[in-house]
Formats: sequence, structure tokens, C-alpha cells
Amino acid sequence: MAKVLVEVSARHIHLTQENVNKLFGEGHQLKPMRPLSQPGMFAAEETVQLSTPKAAIENVRVLGPVRNYTQVEISKTEAIRFGLEPPVRDSEEINLDATAGIKVIGPKGELNLEKGVIIAWRHIHVSNTQALELRLRDGQLVKVKIEGERAITFENVLVRVRPNFSLAVHLDTDEGNAAGIKGSVIGELIV
Amino acid sequence: MAKVLVEVSARHIHLTQENVNKLFGEGHQLKPMRPLSQPGMFAAEETVQLSTPKAAIENVRVLGPVRNYTQVEISKTEAIRFGLEPPVRDSEEINLDATAGIKVIGPKGELNLEKGVIIAWRHIHVSNTQALELRLRDGQLVKVKIEGERAITFENVLVRVRPNFSLAVHLDTDEGNAAGIKGSVIGELIV
Repeated sequence: MAKVLVEVSARHIHLTQENVNKLFGEGHQLKPMRPLSQPGMFAAEETVQLSTPKAAIENVRVLGPVRNYTQVEISKTEAIRFGLEPPVRDSEEINLDATAGIKVIGPKGELNLEKGVIIAWRHIHVSNTQALELRLRDGQLVKVKIEGERAITFENVLVRVRPNFSLAVHLDTDEGNAAGIKGSVIGELIV
Repeated sequence: MAKVLVEVSARHIHLTQENVNKLFGEGHQLKPMRPLSQPGMFAAEETVQLSTPKAAIENVRVLGPVRNYTQVEISKTEAIRFGLEPPVRDSEEINLDATAGIKVIGPKGELNLEKGVIIAWRHIHVSNTQALELRLRDGQLVKVKIEGERAITFENVLVRVRPNFSLAVHLDTDEGNAAGIKGSVIGELIV
């Protein structure tokens, strides 16, 4: 059984350049603050506020680079706080039908998203080379075991294979907290 | 493998009669609103606000009957929101040393608890008869598997055997949300 890096993704938003313009000003370019484990991806300096009639959460991190769709990823705990019922969905799925809406507030403007809010399906990033070594294929579901006082085995972990991916499991904060993960840990991949 | 009821406990507080008096008025008696799965236990009509310098959460349910210690059970997600670092601990453990503090606000007064905030260790309530049938002993750690799109196997589920207990697994909201549980579900006990 292979050892894998397990990381926890806090609530965040992916934006189109058009929506970056609306929230941060025309022609604004996202400023990388720190790189993420997947090559080219970064946490931006920019943050937004997410708001519904039931709750508002500030300082929600924008992830870069810009994408060709705008998507908000929150945990189920946060969805309940917001009064939303987003689906658990592959965060690379570009079809945002039947997802929840939310208001996004930036320093220069706001968006009233009618859709785009999801709870991310737990997943593992794998490069093509790693996929061969580990005998994994894109779209497969595997298990990941976390040790510790809140030991858990996560099932239905979606395998995503891309040439430039780096081996890492991504959980949301409910999953990370349920497993007692602080920051990141090494888990066990069970195929 | 036995089937077991799995319930999710939202944040709540257990109070001494002395602290009920401080929060709700001298001689106040908790009013049962609905019974819980464990005989004699109830969700009370009374709620309190929990507050720290970082956040406040209203409408936190009081559970009855009163106990001889005051204890607040929250999820790790809520602990982070409050800026607290409570331990994951058996919620029947009366020793509250090294737990977190919090302000509790009621309609007639408030408490500045120096300790008593915990994250509950996942556990299963079992009657003496059920323990014999299922070959479980008090203090044992077992596994519980939840099916569904967010399927999970929880390890280190603490067995609690008492004559009047009713068979039920108790998770907190991080654990319940990580497993995609709405309300309660039937899980699989793995000994």
C-alpha cells in the first residue's frame, strides 16, 4: 500500500478573468501569494466575502490562475451555515447545473452567482507516471486511510490523472477535521 | 456484522443546576423539548449563546437532565471559528483539565467557563444485553462503516456499556458531514 500526501482544502473560489474584473477592477491580475501542491496553481493574495441571507463569511481565498468558469467550494458545515444545499461534485466538472448560488463581494464590485457552489468530491491528484506505477486510472474510486485518534478510511476517493499532477489527496475541512488532520498528513492509499 | 443506528450530535451544552440558575434564573427547571435516543436524555427548550473574542454562535441547545459538571461539545470546525483548541475527549470523562474555556450567555446571566469545552470522541452507546449479544466490552474501540457517496469507515469508535443505554453511534457534525449523513443513518458495526 502506497503512502500519499493528504491535504485539506479550506473554502475557496475559482474565478474567470471577467469576474476578477468585476470584483477587483478592470484588468486586475491575481497576485500569487503561495504555490499549491499542483504545479501552476496558487493561493492568491485576493480574498472575497461570500454572503447569503443566513450568513456571511469573509476572507475567502481566491485560487489562481483564472479558469473559464467560476466555482465556489465550501464544506457541508458551511453550506448549512449559509442555508444552501450544494451537491457533492467533482470540482473539475465544468457542468454547474443544479449547484447552489451565492453572493460574492469584492473590493470593487459584487457577483450574484445563480450557480457554481459545490462541495468538492474527495479526490486524489496523480501524474500519468504515478498512475502507471500505482496502477490507477482516471475516474477510478480508491480508499485512503488516515491514522491517529480520529482514524478514518475515506472511500470513494476519485482518481484524477493528468500529466502535470502531483500525488496528493484533497479533502475538505469537514473531512479533514473529522480525521483530526492539522495541515497535511501522510495517508495510506488502498486500491 | 451488525447494523447500528448512527446519529449526529450538533454543538450542545450540559449544565449543572447551579449554572442553569445563573443562566436562566434561580430555581429554573430545564423544559424537555424532545427525547434523545438515550433513555431519560432530552433536548431542552433552552438555548444559550457561546462566545469568544473571535466568534459567537447563538441558539446552542441545552441537553438535559442537569449533570454534576458543565460541559460544552463543539466540532473542530466550530473550535477553529471560535479560535479554541479543545481536546478530542470522551464526553463522559468528568475530568475537564486541559480543556478549553468559553463564555456562555443566557437570558438571565452569563458564565465565563475556564474549562469544559471538548470535541467529543466518537462513541457507541450499548446496553449490557446488547454488549453480550455483540460481544462488546466497555472501553473497547470498534469501527463503524457508513455507505453512500461520501462512504467512510470510522475507526476508534469508543464503546460505552451502561444498563439503560440504547444502541446508537454518536458522531459530531464534522464527522456526520464528512460522511454525508443527513439526520441519522444505519451503519455497519465492525468489531
